[in-house]
Order: sequence, then structure tokens, then C-alpha cells
Amino acid sequence: GRAEMGVYQYNAAFAAAKGAANPGDPQFFTDIDVTFTMSGETDNGLTFGASVDLDEGGNQAATKNNSDDGGATIFISGGFGTVTMGDTDGALDWALTDAGNVGNPGSIADDETTHAGYNGAYLDGGNDGQILRWDYTSGAWGVAVSLEDDNGSNAVNTGIGYAIGFKYALDLSGTTVNFGLGHQRAADGAPGTATDAKATGVSVSATFANGLAAGIEYTDMTNSVFDKHIGVGVGYTTGAISVHANYGKYDGVVAANDQKGFGLAAAYDLGGGAVAHFGYGSGKVGAGPTQKSASIGLGLSF
Amino acid sequence: GRAEMGVYQYNAAFAAAKGAANPGDPQFFTDIDVTFTMSGETDNGLTFGASVDLDEGGNQAATKNNSDDGGATIFISGGFGTVTMGDTDGALDWALTDAGNVGNPGSIADDETTHAGYNGAYLDGGNDGQILRWDYTSGAWGVAVSLEDDNGSNAVNTGIGYAIGFKYALDLSGTTVNFGLGHQRAADGAPGTATDAKATGVSVSATFANGLAAGIEYTDMTNSVFDKHIGVGVGYTTGAISVHANYGKYDGVVAANDQKGFGLAAAYDLGGGAVAHFGYGSGKVGAGPTQKSASIGLGLSF
Amino acid sequence: GRAEMGVYQYNAAFAAAKGAANPGDPQFFTDIDVTFTMSGETDNGLTFGASVDLDEGGNQAATKNNSDDGGATIFISGGFGTVTMGDTDGALDWALTDAGNVGNPGSIADDETTHAGYNGAYLDGGNDGQILRWDYTSGAWGVAVSLEDDNGSNAVNTGIGYAIGFKYALDLSGTTVNFGLGHQRAADGAPGTATDAKATGVSVSATFANGLAAGIEYTDMTNSVFDKHIGVGVGYTTGAISVHANYGKYDGVVAANDQKGFGLAAAYDLGGGAVAHFGYGSGKVGAGPTQKSASIGLGLSF
Repeated sequence: GRAEMGVYQYNAAFAAAKGAANPGDPQFFTDIDVTFTMSGETDNGLTFGASVDLDEGGNQAATKNNSDDGGATIFISGGFGTVTMGDTDGALDWALTDAGNVGNPGSIADDETTHAGYNGAYLDGGNDGQILRWDYTSGAWGVAVSLEDDNGSNAVNTGIGYAIGFKYALDLSGTTVNFGLGHQRAADGAPGTATDAKATGVSVSATFANGLAAGIEYTDMTNSVFDKHIGVGVGYTTGAISVHANYGKYDGVVAANDQKGFGLAAAYDLGGGAVAHFGYGSGKVGAGPTQKSASIGLGLSF
Repeated sequence: GRAEMGVYQYNAAFAAAKGAANPGDPQFFTDIDVTFTMSGETDNGLTFGASVDLDEGGNQAATKNNSDDGGATIFISGGFGTVTMGDTDGALDWALTDAGNVGNPGSIADDETTHAGYNGAYLDGGNDGQILRWDYTSGAWGVAVSLEDDNGSNAVNTGIGYAIGFKYALDLSGTTVNFGLGHQRAADGAPGTATDAKATGVSVSATFANGLAAGIEYTDMTNSVFDKHIGVGVGYTTGAISVHANYGKYDGVVAANDQKGFGLAAAYDLGGGAVAHFGYGSGKVGAGPTQKSASIGLGLSF
Repeated sequence: GRAEMGVYQYNAAFAAAKGAANPGDPQFFTDIDVTFTMSGETDNGLTFGASVDLDEGGNQAATKNNSDDGGATIFISGGFGTVTMGDTDGALDWALTDAGNVGNPGSIADDETTHAGYNGAYLDGGNDGQILRWDYTSGAWGVAVSLEDDNGSNAVNTGIGYAIGFKYALDLSGTTVNFGLGHQRAADGAPGTATDAKATGVSVSATFANGLAAGIEYTDMTNSVFDKHIGVGVGYTTGAISVHANYGKYDGVVAANDQKGFGLAAAYDLGGGAVAHFGYGSGKVGAGPTQKSASIGLGLSF
């Protein structure tokens, strides 16, 4: 489980973009997650498991709607690799390292990964995000293929989305450089679109012995309001202190669709699962006002 | 806990009957249950306990509405028998063995027990399903009495429902033949009906040493759109493989109320709680179109 | 966790005051709580923890809305005292002993603390009840300060609520007499009010060696429909049996705002966490009809 308490704040432009209430003054922040993880093993050695969070219970889709994952993840694993179904990454997201995943200690309100220039999920969630992924890793290489359901729709132009991804970990005298490459076609809702959005992405990242981490990710998009996206991230950890910064930019097919922004996160580890967090994000859509958000508080992991 | 993943499909007639969306093509299926079971013992040796599932949490009736069980079950047990309150079977359902409970390994979408000819809950749920049942077992005999609340309603003609049931287990040189017999009057909502629905049922079932199981159940109804129901079920288990079939038929008071259908289930046990499942159901109401559904996938128990 | 089963009943006046359905006849009562408690310790010895109930999961505020506690409580504790955030008592409620907290064994429907004359939460919950409290105890003395958020509102006249409270435990030859004193200003929602409600309260209570407990609590209110409130409670425990009674009275600024009532609770402890409970409450608002409620049943703690 995990609990977070602190204070957060965002300006009117951020509130308008995210549909949040009460911009302006700081306000109290509390959040709690209780995750139930289950696992087992078949007679011939396949391992399997599932996990779901308390906030997916009740009348939520994880437990009530079988055609939507609703936050549950289920897997079975063996010599054939791992098959995962539910609320999991598509193969493109699986292969790439996002700018925010480079040495990022996190923050309580995730300010550093919610700014307008951040790209984290690629084309996952084109329908309802219920994804089936097979992945297989052998030595330095990894490969994955994924499908996202169109919920059995028969409407014109709807279709299942797919993705394929590759990973390679290059060992350079002790420092590992991770390469990722993938391609994805978005799933459709109903009614579907004749020209499905597609994305092809590549990422390179590395963590060095001195505590520095750096990475870059590039995505080319088709049939989208965006032409391409680039994201860079750096992180540094020394003792109990971690800092992270990232920058991202979408090039729109027209200038009004341009989006860019940056995020900052800093953390001080108190040990035992308690970490003091600070996060900041700033972004802009086209010629619109700057959206800003910040948070400070404690993250407690149990 | 339990998790299920796979693929399921149903036709337009099934979707219309059950209020489901997107008939036609196969779609992904994921479901997860996390059950919390608690138990204790009083100083003088009474045992007590309660259970509830994650999907009854949040704003659901189990935890928020005290006049509705909402899926929670609570019991206390001692020399006087067992008193159970909440989401439990009425005494008729307690006494009878449904056709789908005869050697049925189950399926992920329960296709084999949701067809139009299937009778599983008798008159339970006439109000909100919050049931109080006392049952007592002595040797081969068992008896139960149950009440279903009308939520304290004072409206004309509403009333508490009741049921009574008996069980007898006859030992025939190693094979046990189970007999069940019971009678039930339905609980009323508000406004109530002057002529409450009633049901009298009987069932006989047995499991043989060679892995075969067979059973039949018959219910006579009064003040209902149905005159009677008959259900038969067979199952067979050999090693890791189990198969099951059932057939059921409601005779309506007019021909348009007739309902019938059959269900099939097959399973292969991978051990350790992982089972591969297949289910199929087909049913028909009056002269309407045939309703069909099927599912295939993995059921994982933890 | 905890489960309760039994029967409860209330009259039409109680139902109208509380917005409940189906007054008149007794009805079944079932309730279940599953509480998840987590704790940890930092490297330098601070302890921290969090708790949340199953009924706060799903789409409820505890897990989904970071600007509302929704029933979750999070704390960190050390030599500086304890800082608690979330669904916790404000400092006035922390300091005072309510009439219903004097030797009260409880009941399944809380009849004895829901009557019209009962005062339990003071001005907590003026906004959404998301409270930050610091408390510190040294020997016989304790002190607390709390804030209740206005959710960052910039609307005119909204403001954060605050409270301060003191506790003192006087040892009189083996019997401890507890004194409490505090003051509170209510938090505002949006739009706020220019004249915020305020309350100043004092309480004295003691538990004697013979099993008797007694207490009195007095609150003076400003900018409220009430002028003052007084509550008295007594309890007695002998062996497995506990009984409790309380009386409370609000003096309104006009006679129509007067509220008064009393509550009774009795319990028989079966051991092992199982307790048989009876509760009764009766109250009146102004010259209105008497509101009555009662419950009887089993409370099971696990």
C-alpha cells in the first residue's frame, strides 16, 4: 500500500486544462492506495498472478465490467514468455523509456509527468485500455506484441489496435545503455475512424555509476493532430537526495496543436518507505496561457 | 481471491435479453474478485464469521446500506445450528441441487448457467435479497428455515417472504444420493401484490465412483408467469478434465412465457488453482430468436 | 474488521429527519467493515501509518479525490508529537469527551448517538472534513492544533477553519478525572459566510473503580442557529454486561431551533469479539414530533 499527504496548488490555466476545481490557493492533499496482489503456480511450473487496487473495487469496472479491465492486471508466465491481460502497457510503451522514467523519484501529485509536453502512454487507451500483451526476454534482448480490444464492436471502421516493441540492453564496461523501438496502431471506439492513428517510437537511456541518469525518446505520429514528439529526461541521486527534470514537446500538424512543457521533481528519502517529495510542472498548448502545478508532501510506502 | 482472463462472445438476441452491449465479435474478458473472510469464536465456543468481496466495497450496499445485504454474509454457529444473515441462499435454494451444480467445473462468463431455461435462485430476491436463514444438520438429515425482509414496508400487501427446506443423504453402498425438498413464498417490494408467488421444489442428485454425476430438479410455481420448471444436469470428471451439460425448461401459463435452454462447460485443470475453461449457453423465450453466448479462458484461484 | 447483524426500527419522524426510507416495521440490519491499516518507521525512528476502510474504496473520495480525505487517515509521529491528516478529529473534538463516549458499549445502528440532542463532531466538517492536526502529549497534559481546509477556494469570505484544544488528566487517589477545553472556528465552503460559526467547549469525565463512568460536556456557540449545548453521559460495566445512557440539549437562538434527546445502550459480551447489543434513541426538534429509533443484534469484531 501507499499513502500520501501534503499540500498542492495549480493555476487557473492548469485547472481549465485538467477539469480541476479551485485553482489559486494551496490546498490539502491526501491519497491512499491499497493494492491486493495474488500469485500461484501450476503443477508444471507456470507462474500466474493478478493485482488490483482498493480504488478499483466497489462499482468500478475492474470488478463489475468484464469487457473493461478497470485497473486489474492478470498474467501467466512460463518458458513461452509472459502473457498479461488487463490494465497493462501496450508493446510500444513497454519498449520505450519515457522521459519521466529517467531517474525520477516521483511526487505526490505527479506534477512532473502531467504537463502539456509530456507523453507517457503513446496510443494505449484508444478504446478502453483493456490490453493483451505477450512479452519475451532472452539475455540482452526483449520483444513484445500487444492487442487492444475494440470491445467486439461491429460498427464501421472500428478495429483492434496492435503494437510491437523491441528492447536491447548494451553493456558498456559496467554502464548499461537501454535501447527501445516500437510501432503501434490505436484501437478504435464506436464509431471508428477510417484512418487509425499510428506511432513509431525510439528511446535511448542510461544510468551511470556516479548516480546520473539520462534519456531521450522520439515518437513519429500519423493520422494524428500531432506530427511528432520529443522528450528528454535527466536524474541524479546522491545519498538520500534525488532530483529529476524532464522536457517534452509535441509538434502539431498546425501551430495551434503544438504543446510543450517541463517537469521537476526532488525527493529526500527518510528511510523505511517514507520519502519527502516536491514536484513542479509547467506547460503550454499553442499560444495559450502557461499551465502550472506544484506539490510538496510525504509519500509513505508500506 | 480469483482472477479470470479470456475471450467471450454473444449474439444480438442474448445481448438484448441481458442488456449487454456490443454483440457479435469476440471481445477480451477480465474479471477479478478479492474476498475478505473473517472469523472468530466466543468464550463458550460459538463460532462466527463474515465475508465480503472487494466489489461490494466503495459506495455499494454491503458497506453503505444497512437495510440491504449488498453481498456481505454474516453467520454465527453453535449447537443450535447456524444462523446466517445477508447475501445467502433461502431455505428452498439451500435444500435443492440445481442442474448447474451437478459436476459443473464452471466457466469464466458463466454461459452454462445464464441461459433462458436455467433456474438457480428460485424466489430469492423478491425484495432485496437480504435473507436470514437458520439451518441445522444431524447425520444424514438437514433442515433450514429462512426469511426475506420486506425492508419494514407498511405499504398494502407487502410482506416478508419465507422458505423451508429439507435435505437427506442416502448412502447406497458407497454412492451418496442427495434428496432435497422445499417450499417458498416470495418477499414483496413496495407496493406489494395480494397474491404472492410461491414455489415447491424437489431435487435428486448423485455422484458415482467412476466420476459421473447426474441430477434432476423439479419446481411447481403458483401466482407466477410460469407453471413449472424442470432441470437436468450431468457431469463427468476424469483426471484433469471435467465436462458438464444441463438442460432446463419453464412451462409458462401461456405459450409466450415458455423458456428453455441448455448449457455446456468443459475445463482442464492445470493445477495450483489455474484452470482452462470453456462455456456455452443457448436459450429461447417463447417464439423469440435463439440467445447464444460462449467464453474461453483461464480461471485463476488464489 | 467488523460485522453487524440484527433488526432495527424507527418511526416516521426519525425517517423524515434522517432521510431514511420505510419507517414503521422492524427490518433486517447487516453491515460490514474491512479496515486496512498500514504502518512503518523511518531510519531515524519516526513512525508513520495510514488506514482506510473497504467502504471508502471504489469511486469514493478516499482513493479518487486528493482534495477530500474520503475516510482515509494518514499520520507521522515522533518527538515533535503526531501530525495526522485526513478523516480525523479537529482539536476541539480531540480535547473534549462527548456524552456518548462515557462508558458506552455501542449499538449496531448507533441509535444512542444519533438522536436530535446529540453533539459529537462540533464544527468539524464545515467544508469537506479533510483535517490536518498536530497533537502532543507530555505526562498528564495534552495539546492539539488543527486546520480544516477550504479546498483552496478564492471565493469571497471562504477561509480555513482552525481549532485548538487542551487535555488534562487529574489523578485522584486512583481515579482519573479527564478535563478537556477547546475553541474552534468552522471552515467555509464556497461561497463562504462573513460571520463564521465558532464554538468553545469544556468537558469533565471520570471512570471509577466500581465500573461506573460519568461525564458532562458544555459548548457555547456563536454565529450559529444554536446558542449553547449541554450533554451528560453515564455508563456502568459489571462482568459481561454494560449499560449507558446520555442526554443532550441544544438551546436555539429561537425556540424553534431547540433540540433535545436521550440515548440508551446495553450490551452483553459473549467473548472473542462477539457482543450482543441493544440501542435506543429519542429526540425532538422545537415543537416537532418525537423521533425514535431502536436496534438489537450482534456486533462481531475480528
